[in-house]
Amino acid sequence: MKKLILTIGCVLTTVLLFAQNKATWIWYPGDFEVWLGNDMQNRRTERGTFFPPFWKMDSHYVLVEFHKEFDLQQAEEIKIHAEGKYNVKVNGKMLPGMPGSLKLEKGKQKINVKVYNQAKVPALFVEGKQVNTDKDWLVTFEDKEWIDETGKASDQSGTTYVKAGYWNFQNSAQRPSTFKLPTRYEESVASTKQGKGSLIDFGKNTFGFLTLHQLKGNGELNIYYGESKEEALATTTCETLDLLSINQQSAQDSTLDLSKAFRYVYIEPKGNVSFDKVSMEYEYLPVEDRGTFKSSDEELNKIWEVAKYTMELTSREFYIDGIKRDRWIWSGDAYQSYAMNYYLGFDSETVKRTILALRGKEPTMSHINTIMDYTFYWFLSIYDYYQYTGDKEFIANVYPRMQSLMQFCLDRRNADGLMEGLSGDWVFIDWADGLSKQGEVSFEQLLLCRSLETMALCAELLDESADKAQYAKEAAQLKGKIFDYYWNEQKGAFAHSRVAGKQTDQVTRYTNMFAIFFDYLSANQQKAVKDKVLLNDAIQKIMTPYMRYYELEALCALGEKDYVMSEMKSYWGGMLKLGATTFWEEYNPDKKGAEHYAMYGREFGKSLCHSWGASPIYLLGKYYLGVEPTAAGYERYTINPYLASLQWMEGKVPTPAGEIELAVSKKKITVKSPIGTGTLQLKSKVTPRCKQGKVVKTGKDQYSIELKKDTTYEVHYEA
Amino acid sequence: MKKLILTIGCVLTTVLLFAQNKATWIWYPGDFEVWLGNDMQNRRTERGTFFPPFWKMDSHYVLVEFHKEFDLQQAEEIKIHAEGKYNVKVNGKMLPGMPGSLKLEKGKQKINVKVYNQAKVPALFVEGKQVNTDKDWLVTFEDKEWIDETGKASDQSGTTYVKAGYWNFQNSAQRPSTFKLPTRYEESVASTKQGKGSLIDFGKNTFGFLTLHQLKGNGELNIYYGESKEEALATTTCETLDLLSINQQSAQDSTLDLSKAFRYVYIEPKGNVSFDKVSMEYEYLPVEDRGTFKSSDEELNKIWEVAKYTMELTSREFYIDGIKRDRWIWSGDAYQSYAMNYYLGFDSETVKRTILALRGKEPTMSHINTIMDYTFYWFLSIYDYYQYTGDKEFIANVYPRMQSLMQFCLDRRNADGLMEGLSGDWVFIDWADGLSKQGEVSFEQLLLCRSLETMALCAELLDESADKAQYAKEAAQLKGKIFDYYWNEQKGAFAHSRVAGKQTDQVTRYTNMFAIFFDYLSANQQKAVKDKVLLNDAIQKIMTPYMRYYELEALCALGEKDYVMSEMKSYWGGMLKLGATTFWEEYNPDKKGAEHYAMYGREFGKSLCHSWGASPIYLLGKYYLGVEPTAAGYERYTINPYLASLQWMEGKVPTPAGEIELAVSKKKITVKSPIGTGTLQLKSKVTPRCKQGKVVKTGKDQYSIELKKDTTYEVHYEA
Repeated sequence: MKKLILTIGCVLTTVLLFAQNKATWIWYPGDFEVWLGNDMQNRRTERGTFFPPFWKMDSHYVLVEFHKEFDLQQAEEIKIHAEGKYNVKVNGKMLPGMPGSLKLEKGKQKINVKVYNQAKVPALFVEGKQVNTDKDWLVTFEDKEWIDETGKASDQSGTTYVKAGYWNFQNSAQRPSTFKLPTRYEESVASTKQGKGSLIDFGKNTFGFLTLHQLKGNGELNIYYGESKEEALATTTCETLDLLSINQQSAQDSTLDLSKAFRYVYIEPKGNVSFDKVSMEYEYLPVEDRGTFKSSDEELNKIWEVAKYTMELTSREFYIDGIKRDRWIWSGDAYQSYAMNYYLGFDSETVKRTILALRGKEPTMSHINTIMDYTFYWFLSIYDYYQYTGDKEFIANVYPRMQSLMQFCLDRRNADGLMEGLSGDWVFIDWADGLSKQGEVSFEQLLLCRSLETMALCAELLDESADKAQYAKEAAQLKGKIFDYYWNEQKGAFAHSRVAGKQTDQVTRYTNMFAIFFDYLSANQQKAVKDKVLLNDAIQKIMTPYMRYYELEALCALGEKDYVMSEMKSYWGGMLKLGATTFWEEYNPDKKGAEHYAMYGREFGKSLCHSWGASPIYLLGKYYLGVEPTAAGYERYTINPYLASLQWMEGKVPTPAGEIELAVSKKKITVKSPIGTGTLQLKSKVTPRCKQGKVVKTGKDQYSIELKKDTTYEVHYEA
Repeated sequence: MKKLILTIGCVLTTVLLFAQNKATWIWYPGDFEVWLGNDMQNRRTERGTFFPPFWKMDSHYVLVEFHKEFDLQQAEEIKIHAEGKYNVKVNGKMLPGMPGSLKLEKGKQKINVKVYNQAKVPALFVEGKQVNTDKDWLVTFEDKEWIDETGKASDQSGTTYVKAGYWNFQNSAQRPSTFKLPTRYEESVASTKQGKGSLIDFGKNTFGFLTLHQLKGNGELNIYYGESKEEALATTTCETLDLLSINQQSAQDSTLDLSKAFRYVYIEPKGNVSFDKVSMEYEYLPVEDRGTFKSSDEELNKIWEVAKYTMELTSREFYIDGIKRDRWIWSGDAYQSYAMNYYLGFDSETVKRTILALRGKEPTMSHINTIMDYTFYWFLSIYDYYQYTGDKEFIANVYPRMQSLMQFCLDRRNADGLMEGLSGDWVFIDWADGLSKQGEVSFEQLLLCRSLETMALCAELLDESADKAQYAKEAAQLKGKIFDYYWNEQKGAFAHSRVAGKQTDQVTRYTNMFAIFFDYLSANQQKAVKDKVLLNDAIQKIMTPYMRYYELEALCALGEKDYVMSEMKSYWGGMLKLGATTFWEEYNPDKKGAEHYAMYGREFGKSLCHSWGASPIYLLGKYYLGVEPTAAGYERYTINPYLASLQWMEGKVPTPAGEIELAVSKKKITVKSPIGTGTLQLKSKVTPRCKQGKVVKTGKDQYSIELKKDTTYEVHYEA
């Protein structure tokens, strides 16, 4: 009887195995990401002129060897598709020509395919019942298979093989080089005559390809795009435009080639050019709709929705900064998109793709995006990714690239072991008037320290104990220096910088607020920073949502969630009051009217849909719904709901296994999780009641309940 | 009066300047070479199967910025062509769109063009009267032009600009990506029926695209290529073939897509496929016909002619090894092609192109072609190039890449400061049965030492005195070790290797013969090496023309030119007697018939047209015509003619300024040079007479005459 069950078990396993072994296109890891990143980032235009990035753009390997060993239960025929010229070896024997299919015998079979493609990424798709390309194939860009004079192959080639890169190209026809984001038809909402042309309104900021219906005639068609009405009408200063020559005798619907960002489009035909109406093909990254938030505060709900839409628009082939410009991948911006994503779509593939594209290829000659701080955010993003997803495999894959980038950083330290901007290094920190980047800026040392700690964590995870010890030691030494060189007891703050070996007078928010959520400060130091820096109006204010994100996170960490809630409503709510349909690159409440649209010395230089504007998603998810993984991949997590000024809130937070669902009012909390073990933490004036779990008192008015997965907990309490 | 002349001088200069300023396509140096090298080296097939290299193939930079500053004497319009998407700035101001032409004002004008192309090399062609793309434009792959929040560009970007790469694309329509070698029609010389097909003979080994005239029908056409008749007829073992499906109802001349090497072609049609006759499109690199050699010995003349044809066939997009296989760029093989080229076509562009393609891009992770010795030949080739051409500019351009490759080598030394094959290193030396590659092979240390000396020479040339001192010191230390560890006084030779810290017993020719022409040995050591190694049949004989080249060069350097002449005639003459129409990869006189064609355990594995077979060109030019530059670019040179068994010889040796023409009989020498200052050295039983120059006695029966350029010297003497 037992034997029979086992046999059935085996059959079932085999069937499942066949079903799971769906082939996917594979490539050298990072190659497709680099190639697609180049393609996307070179689509920026400024007033019709091509506007490429200013950093080194890398290339795919042009010649890649793929292989995997199989032990086939039965003979089978496999099909082979490749992007490029290729050859195939089975068990070391080269097959004639470029076989599109071949028969494999039962038993051990080693398949090697070598693909060459200079213009596009060498990619491979092998499809069979048992043999399929998947992430466990090994790849190399130099197999070093030399032979001696007798024809014997070298037995000591020293080739490094790594696991293949892949995404979601599950069909042979879905060649990676043909990848395009999907589009859908969207109507404009209004069209009005303005001067010699028409002003079209799409109702909200959007992104895609404009379609001119029944376009015909001979002459010119000038199209001026605006994230604001003012910009679309400012034909001489708007940031993007299309100046087209039209010679179309019979009317036809014409969709433009290059995607653009706009809410308004001002179109001036010249000659006898005419068209009926204007619509668009909205271009988007399909992301599952997972994270939600709703509350008793309609303004807050609107903030969350607009933040979500801002994320939708800036989540594309990769996480980009903004849709009007630059449409580039910026590491500091992407770092925030990842965090928002963990509370929204939980789209791990886009996180990994962006991390790989940002890293690019060796040799490492510059900081990521040329920016020192952006290199450090890249390190931080990787451990965060692990914490939210539990995907250790990616950490293992990317670890060698982390090591070489860290070595690049360590090699650039000065005699005091600190980082300062060398020739070619951009010390960015934030867009802020007159912010000094001179000397050894404390913020950069702090980020390097955290990056070294990240290296130590990743090394530990991968059982690289010597690496771990080395990185931990470097981190500890640097942390000591940060306090020695920058902490000013009198000011109760870290100084902004050190110039010529001397601490400068300036105090800024950056280092101080990061030190809080990095948990580097004692309770006394935290209090000093809160009072003397974060809540001190004499310290230069932050004007970008980018740094507002960290500032508010620091205040949340300090327990100032009521204050943060009101700040969120006033800052992001302030943009909504000005009619924002997406959140901005920078917002200074003191400015008026179209002043808001200017930046970089240009009338409409500011991006009105910038990913870093979407941080309320993260803040609301992590600090109000209060959901946070405390062990990788939500194996353990905490839920610490906080209503602040709200009457109630409810929402979903995505995890690797589904969504944690949460509803919180002043008297009742309902929660259900599909994963791991959670701890619901709550403050209550009365002892909470919960039929499904055990209520534990943890302090004055403080209680906790352990949450098991797949159980709905109803907790009655009094906030 | 003086002033007037000056003015005329100025006008003339300006006119000349305009005439010289012909535009040329430019790119990031090395990019086109890498791209074209990838293309060429991935054309190899083995029995119809794609057979790519096994080392890392690099890529061009996808985004490149080009710029140059001009001071225009008058306004002008320029035309802009680019391979890729581009933008244009004039004096820092971006122009709209992608302008194909633009007007420049009189005065200072800085033109920047940024070109993006992922599939092909970003390249630029700007054409005007005064403004033209040329080798003095500067380029970079990361301009790091970031801005601050006010829009101000960074003033400390630390960008490294280098001079542009170029070749001979002097016309806007001649886009680098469309480059193809020219072809010309060639007839076959015989066609005979054989079995089910026809055997076509082209009379000699050749290379190109087969044309089947009036091809028609439905079925298959199997084409088997052979460098020998045996190979073409060996349908199951020949190295290259085309198995074609034909479905062509109306007859038409059909030229095949992929070039092949062959003398014979065996064609078997199946079904009702038929054709009239077979011709070919011979594919070749146009090289000026400059070096010549003719003598009283018809066999030697034939050797020179066949060597020349062998060079012609293996000089292609780059100098390749052989035309049948591998059609790859191998550094050790190319090093010899360069040397032969200096006595034949003096085609500096192909030397430079090959050197750049071999070096590839950073990061340097492996030896060139994965072979340790091939890395070292690359260094040696660069100073040689300078010595023959005087082109210091190229040395300056390539010097940073020399430095990083040398650092790679130095970092791979073991605790004793010696190089041994690490995992992934191929220690090649030569194709020779049972040659040990274990431990610290003396040959590799010798080549590293010479490479370090080369680095010191190049550093000196570029006034990099710290570098020079460092490399010279490393070279001197290593030279000391070579004598300490390998010189065996008793054996009168360098030992082959050291294993586990102990000198091995084996003596081979390689280290010993290179030490002679590197001039590392005392007179006594030289004599010992000559007697106990080079002229000692007990030491394993060399079977490749590759190492025969160095062996004979060593013997020439030892004054054994009579012996070398007879060896040349017997070794290369031996191949001719076997019907060779091009020289082979390996020749062992002891083999018989089709045994000669086997190698690598394959019946027709051997290449019968291998560049390293062409060395008589070099030996005859350097040691018999006796012409050798002694200062860079033939500023100074020696002519030391040696007739050996010849009654007379005459020839031309190319220099940067034209050919040195030389005719030598036993009684008279006639010589004329277009360049520099030469020293004619001759041995004569009587005091030579020369009306045009002063005869100086330099020893017993030894005389010299200083040669000025453009003068014909007639010297009467008695050899």
